[in-house]
Amino acid sequence: MPSSPIRKLAPFAEAAKKRGTKIYHLNIGQPDIATPDAFWKAVKDIDLKVLAYSPSDGFEALRKKYAGWFTKKFGQEYFGPSDMLITTGASEALLFTLLSILDEGEEIIATEPTYANYIGFMNSGSIRFKPVATHFDQGFALPSTDEFEAAIGPQTKAILLCNPGNPTGVLYSKAELERIKDLALKHDLFIISDEVYQDFNYSGEPFVSMMHFPELAHHAIVVDSISKRYSACGARIGMVATKNKEVLGTILKFAQQRLSPPTIEQLGAEALFDVDMSYLEDVYAEYIQRRDVLVEGLNSIQGVQCHTPKGAFYCMVKLPVTDSDHFCQWMLEAFEYEGATVMMAPAAGFFVTPGLGKDMVRVAYVLRQEDLKAAVECLRKGLEVYALQA
Amino acid sequence: MPSSPIRKLAPFAEAAKKRGTKIYHLNIGQPDIATPDAFWKAVKDIDLKVLAYSPSDGFEALRKKYAGWFTKKFGQEYFGPSDMLITTGASEALLFTLLSILDEGEEIIATEPTYANYIGFMNSGSIRFKPVATHFDQGFALPSTDEFEAAIGPQTKAILLCNPGNPTGVLYSKAELERIKDLALKHDLFIISDEVYQDFNYSGEPFVSMMHFPELAHHAIVVDSISKRYSACGARIGMVATKNKEVLGTILKFAQQRLSPPTIEQLGAEALFDVDMSYLEDVYAEYIQRRDVLVEGLNSIQGVQCHTPKGAFYCMVKLPVTDSDHFCQWMLEAFEYEGATVMMAPAAGFFVTPGLGKDMVRVAYVLRQEDLKAAVECLRKGLEVYALQA
Repeated sequence: MPSSPIRKLAPFAEAAKKRGTKIYHLNIGQPDIATPDAFWKAVKDIDLKVLAYSPSDGFEALRKKYAGWFTKKFGQEYFGPSDMLITTGASEALLFTLLSILDEGEEIIATEPTYANYIGFMNSGSIRFKPVATHFDQGFALPSTDEFEAAIGPQTKAILLCNPGNPTGVLYSKAELERIKDLALKHDLFIISDEVYQDFNYSGEPFVSMMHFPELAHHAIVVDSISKRYSACGARIGMVATKNKEVLGTILKFAQQRLSPPTIEQLGAEALFDVDMSYLEDVYAEYIQRRDVLVEGLNSIQGVQCHTPKGAFYCMVKLPVTDSDHFCQWMLEAFEYEGATVMMAPAAGFFVTPGLGKDMVRVAYVLRQEDLKAAVECLRKGLEVYALQA
Repeated sequence: MPSSPIRKLAPFAEAAKKRGTKIYHLNIGQPDIATPDAFWKAVKDIDLKVLAYSPSDGFEALRKKYAGWFTKKFGQEYFGPSDMLITTGASEALLFTLLSILDEGEEIIATEPTYANYIGFMNSGSIRFKPVATHFDQGFALPSTDEFEAAIGPQTKAILLCNPGNPTGVLYSKAELERIKDLALKHDLFIISDEVYQDFNYSGEPFVSMMHFPELAHHAIVVDSISKRYSACGARIGMVATKNKEVLGTILKFAQQRLSPPTIEQLGAEALFDVDMSYLEDVYAEYIQRRDVLVEGLNSIQGVQCHTPKGAFYCMVKLPVTDSDHFCQWMLEAFEYEGATVMMAPAAGFFVTPGLGKDMVRVAYVLRQEDLKAAVECLRKGLEVYALQA
């Protein structure tokens, strides 16, 4: 199993820190936003004697809150507590879903660049990942139906979406999702829709979930998590929902094998769904500013290009370098400006096709605006010095 | 994927509860012992703003405490914090270990009856499970070296042990473990040793871990958990340890894909390893009494046989029935005595070989002694009525 390019950089970041260099972490999606007080209060209020297993599909009370929150958000109940299963993070939801619907050697199609861990999950289940190319020059827009159909073969069983997208920040419109829906129905494919970034939607339009299409009741599997919504990544609480009872039943069997998701974090999570929507509005307001600061800053650097993402908190950035793995390592190993450097994720790790993404990096805008500004200046200087050395 | 026999009984248990029947749960290993106060205090004392991801291999502070506890227990450091990785329960440790050391179609050998979820984990990785028979009449003693060697083929990569054993309660002596060690070295096999019940050792001798054999540095992989030791099943905190850096490195890659184990539960777990050893001594004193109450009671029933287990908190019980699946379902569906019935795990689910275990059940002695006594009386009456109906 190959290491992701971010992980390969970790020892260089460690060494830089040891030298006393400050690192602006644009490489990871760990928000700095405070987790709502309601979570901490619920955890402190726990009054149990025995920390027992929870049900394998998670506490019913949590599933009710989770489903109720979606119903409130979407103004309609797309799925109820018995259509969902609580998982140990969205990661587990994705792994169990893949293992449940695909046998060894079967194929899944997804756009590339893609979330690097998807590639790993598929390797775990010996599932083949068939990429459909998206391009920087087109803002990583959804490929045409023809392009998707060219990738679909007799072994293709599912389409995997990340919407809004990690690593591209692309958000699909209702019309685009309808195109995917039609494709899934025509070829009888499952759609796995990873919607963990749905609250980070800067389009001005309401977010459209794959759950919104009643025709997809037997085809759509939606994955979600509290990690990004409530800045609770360490809770490891996610969920998977589908109206397809057979699929949910198979996922439950995987869930039973690992016994249960963590009990305390579920009890904390229950309180989150009662948090006032103003929490998310404040988060949104902060992120849209961060995005604008970062994108404007990046585009002001000679030779750097970056689209304005419509969702999530990532963007793919084109750099005037030929090997971003080398450049990112060099930034950590050999460069500093005003005592600091910038850590970014080389984009090659988000591509399945070898050789792609060498002139790009993924950056996350999860830092305070002043740090983002400083990171941009640091990157500007870094690129200048790197160009002189080449 | 087939459902385990315990899970198949769940709807009948639900229905019995709805009728108002009390159920003595001898079917599951969820202890009723209080989790140490230190855990709850550590959780309540958490003072974080952002519930962030922890490192993929778990907090270093927890790994230090964990390793230190073993060093204290065994009087020698067999492995340090960098030889281990914190997992989301022992379940995840086992799954990642299996996926790391075996490819599809490769084989693992293990005695049967075995822990039912092992069978599921192997299915997840398309790994073949080759059982080596152990027998009730021999107290499920370790098979001979010849019997193991008859099962070893060119695709065999590992031996999986559960010591002390779920579901048999068997505890392996040092001499028996040496036999397994010799086998592993002769055939170059990994040994995966699931030692989560190591504190439930009624032999009067110190527990011998697979880590005790320095010759096995490259072959032994030990799995542990806080679930049973500290009655903290719902924390989902386990660990995997090995001196084999290549294996640990591969397991780490699986761990990185799922990002991290739960943060809060790790912070709680850290406090557990400072709990006074008298906690475990009290638990031991309680369990040995429960075991004796249960075994004596069971053996006093006409036609029922049960060995005195030397470890864990389970035993395999021979019943005067020809189909324990049917009998266990009947107990829930059609029988009650003084307003109560008994739920047990039909033994067939712990066997890989079809047809075995039909006259046995697994019982757990995790209830108060008075409840165990009442459960035994209830089972005695149940068997009488069942015999008349047959």
